[in-house]
Amino acid sequence: MTFIRNRWYIAAWDGEVANAPLSRKICGETIVLYRKLNGSVVALRDACPHRLLPLSLGTREGDNLRCKYHGMLIGPDGSPEEMPLTNQRVNKQISTQSYNVVEKYRYIWVWIGEQDKADPETVPDFWPCDSEGWVFDGGYMHVQCDYRLFIDNLMDLTHETYVHAGSIGQKELMESPLETSVNGNKVTLSRWIPNISPPPFWRDALQKDTPVDRWQICEFIEPCSVNIDVGVSPIENLDSLEDHNSGVRGFVIDSMTPETEESCHYFWGMARNFRIDDQGLTQRIRAGQAAIFHEDIEILERQQQSIADNPDMALRVLSIDSGGAHARRSISKLMEIENGKK
Amino acid sequence: MTFIRNRWYIAAWDGEVANAPLSRKICGETIVLYRKLNGSVVALRDACPHRLLPLSLGTREGDNLRCKYHGMLIGPDGSPEEMPLTNQRVNKQISTQSYNVVEKYRYIWVWIGEQDKADPETVPDFWPCDSEGWVFDGGYMHVQCDYRLFIDNLMDLTHETYVHAGSIGQKELMESPLETSVNGNKVTLSRWIPNISPPPFWRDALQKDTPVDRWQICEFIEPCSVNIDVGVSPIENLDSLEDHNSGVRGFVIDSMTPETEESCHYFWGMARNFRIDDQGLTQRIRAGQAAIFHEDIEILERQQQSIADNPDMALRVLSIDSGGAHARRSISKLMEIENGKK
Amino acid sequence: MTFIRNRWYIAAWDGEVANAPLSRKICGETIVLYRKLNGSVVALRDACPHRLLPLSLGTREGDNLRCKYHGMLIGPDGSPEEMPLTNQRVNKQISTQSYNVVEKYRYIWVWIGEQDKADPETVPDFWPCDSEGWVFDGGYMHVQCDYRLFIDNLMDLTHETYVHAGSIGQKELMESPLETSVNGNKVTLSRWIPNISPPPFWRDALQKDTPVDRWQICEFIEPCSVNIDVGVSPIENLDSLEDHNSGVRGFVIDSMTPETEESCHYFWGMARNFRIDDQGLTQRIRAGQAAIFHEDIEILERQQQSIADNPDMALRVLSIDSGGAHARRSISKLMEIENGKK
Repeated sequence: MTFIRNRWYIAAWDGEVANAPLSRKICGETIVLYRKLNGSVVALRDACPHRLLPLSLGTREGDNLRCKYHGMLIGPDGSPEEMPLTNQRVNKQISTQSYNVVEKYRYIWVWIGEQDKADPETVPDFWPCDSEGWVFDGGYMHVQCDYRLFIDNLMDLTHETYVHAGSIGQKELMESPLETSVNGNKVTLSRWIPNISPPPFWRDALQKDTPVDRWQICEFIEPCSVNIDVGVSPIENLDSLEDHNSGVRGFVIDSMTPETEESCHYFWGMARNFRIDDQGLTQRIRAGQAAIFHEDIEILERQQQSIADNPDMALRVLSIDSGGAHARRSISKLMEIENGKK
Repeated sequence: MTFIRNRWYIAAWDGEVANAPLSRKICGETIVLYRKLNGSVVALRDACPHRLLPLSLGTREGDNLRCKYHGMLIGPDGSPEEMPLTNQRVNKQISTQSYNVVEKYRYIWVWIGEQDKADPETVPDFWPCDSEGWVFDGGYMHVQCDYRLFIDNLMDLTHETYVHAGSIGQKELMESPLETSVNGNKVTLSRWIPNISPPPFWRDALQKDTPVDRWQICEFIEPCSVNIDVGVSPIENLDSLEDHNSGVRGFVIDSMTPETEESCHYFWGMARNFRIDDQGLTQRIRAGQAAIFHEDIEILERQQQSIADNPDMALRVLSIDSGGAHARRSISKLMEIENGKK
Repeated sequence: MTFIRNRWYIAAWDGEVANAPLSRKICGETIVLYRKLNGSVVALRDACPHRLLPLSLGTREGDNLRCKYHGMLIGPDGSPEEMPLTNQRVNKQISTQSYNVVEKYRYIWVWIGEQDKADPETVPDFWPCDSEGWVFDGGYMHVQCDYRLFIDNLMDLTHETYVHAGSIGQKELMESPLETSVNGNKVTLSRWIPNISPPPFWRDALQKDTPVDRWQICEFIEPCSVNIDVGVSPIENLDSLEDHNSGVRGFVIDSMTPETEESCHYFWGMARNFRIDDQGLTQRIRAGQAAIFHEDIEILERQQQSIADNPDMALRVLSIDSGGAHARRSISKLMEIENGKK
């Protein structure tokens, strides 16, 4: 196994889940998602407990799903409300797995492992995605790679120069010193670039041209997210790495939920605290991110294939990979704890 | 293994086998079928005993097949008539497997297991397919599912309400009592519905509107067929479940020959004893059946996939599944006998 | 393993390798080929030693390849010239496999096994491909079969009658006696047909109609080539099987480099010593060969599939297969030596 099970994983954007059932495999388990009449989200194993037809082929009846094969009516807790023949006694023993769900920060989070350990308080903190004065938008992509290759990619921004040569690659950024810190299972890579002229994107964000401090802080949040705090602040604000909320600021929000050991669901977006009502800007940022992430995905899928094609070779860890290496170490340690090896 | 080997299996419709060789995998074995000049059918392993090229790529010469690679000429018993070089001594030791064949009831039946056990008398009784006063027509479909899932499907007609909601689903039929009986390896599900007004299809068949008795009798015939005796008879005929041949009657004929453990060949059709010269009716029935069976196949292929996707879940047997469960028990018992476990 | 590793294998035609990197899997190993500025060819494992992205996705910089992921600059010896961050100390320990290369007889040969055993003198002798008074041309095809099935095919010309019935099949040729000789690891099949009227192709080559001696000599050259010496000579030249260079002569040149255990790269062509400046003839021969080899490939791919489909059957060796059988015995013996079993 390459992933921790007792964790909250993003299964979908809030807007992806409506009344019609949505099927998605999360950490190797088939899951069907739908909303009850009161709007709350249900997550069940996507297989009727009777003859295993995917429940996502069925139809909604009130808060229940009617199986398309023999008409068993499954309630939001995964147990039957009606048996295939209406005059049959309902046997609550025959039920399908239900999963704890939390809807928070614009995402639907499901708990994959032991359900009695699911605590809504342990959903990772994605505050910029749902805060007063911020706006958040993004998209979804399916990627044919181990989610950890994607974490490596996001925890190392040197690749921008080559993978994104035609888009965002910036040599000057790479030359600023980078600090790595590990705090429990959190891994942080920080760059603070004092007193520079703001690059075009940030000058537009700031809506003036004035000397700024700039930052770029990548944070690995277990089990599978990397959020990147970026922005600039006029030098007279005296912002710092520890406290920098007086300029213009954004978070690149990335979560790579494992689908199988060799594929993942990529939920990406940007939260920002400037020009938050400018829908045109929101649209331009989303299109720009999509183009960049497609460049990453092409590399990541080829890398996954190459790992399979060269079984005698191993990934090497250079100093630029220390962020990803620390993140992988966190994941391994948590898996060992989960499997009772520690 | 999920199928019995020492049995007759339908390999093709009679009309599918002509002079040109037909290749079809039956119970995991590649088989080539063709007709001799006298019209009788030959079944051989579809591999030249020399270098294994499929014989179905070859050409007919009289009653023999000439391999496309080195020209070895294989006779209808699987042994060579000519070696690759014409001046070579024919070595009858170098031969390919030949299979016993029976052409009966419009089908080509082949015996897969030990050939010395093949007894033409043990071809299952499909009398309505080839009797005076009856007509029989149907079709062929390839299905990506374990043949036993298809038996389950046919031995339980409650699914009609949901799978065939838009076509033949009829709630009133479901409400009639159903009797299950097991007689040796035969499993029978019977419904007798006395004194009703005939539904449109049967009124047309009968060509009058009068109170009728109606029946529906599903019979599992090992190793892989389910034939369904359906019809109506005017009440004054005093027909019964045991004896009901004085009204209008049809048999839905279904055989699901295993191709591999996860796929099967579906041979389906309808035999009937009314308006037997009405070719338009024959055509309409065939088109109607094809539409309905496509609905089943979509469900069955999704079910097969879901079983693979949810390895921790098992098929549950409810009372509505008892027909299929009895049929599977027959198959298991016969396989145990075949494998010498009993 | 089905192939010898310590050998020279053809990886590409000379014209296929230019400045842009070419990726090709040889004997199960991913290899990238490119030319240095001086024109010599480099062969490296097609995976960056850092994070395994295929180097063939990268870009040339002088004689080096710049990885597309983090910009590591790999030299022609497989070791880094620059680390991902330019200010990092170059660590020569982190390198990718490099392969010995020889460019000879119009082909790029790579040595797959232990590099210190690579001796350019052991490249097989393909002299007609690169000799004064000769011209050589041909093509490349990817084939989904074990390379040894292709050797069997080429070491037995009886198949021409059936596989190439519409093209080159000639019964009279088959009727001439064939001599097999084994000399070390070389296997030779020879036919000498004295005093016949030349067939059309050779009459055109000779540019006159006169009685000729004709020959056809297939030679298996380990590890994976079959070259066929063909031609005619006017009888007055008194040519012989041992010495026949005074008429018109060609070599069909065939090499089947293993890609995986079930697929190979087919490099084919014809070298000839007549009308060598006639480009139209070169083009016609190439087109004719392509058409014939497509007929073989169709058979070989079906044969490979049939071997998998009929696991209980084995390839039989008849007298016509003795050439291929001897060739396979050479390969097996050499593999045993390589694996220290002898």
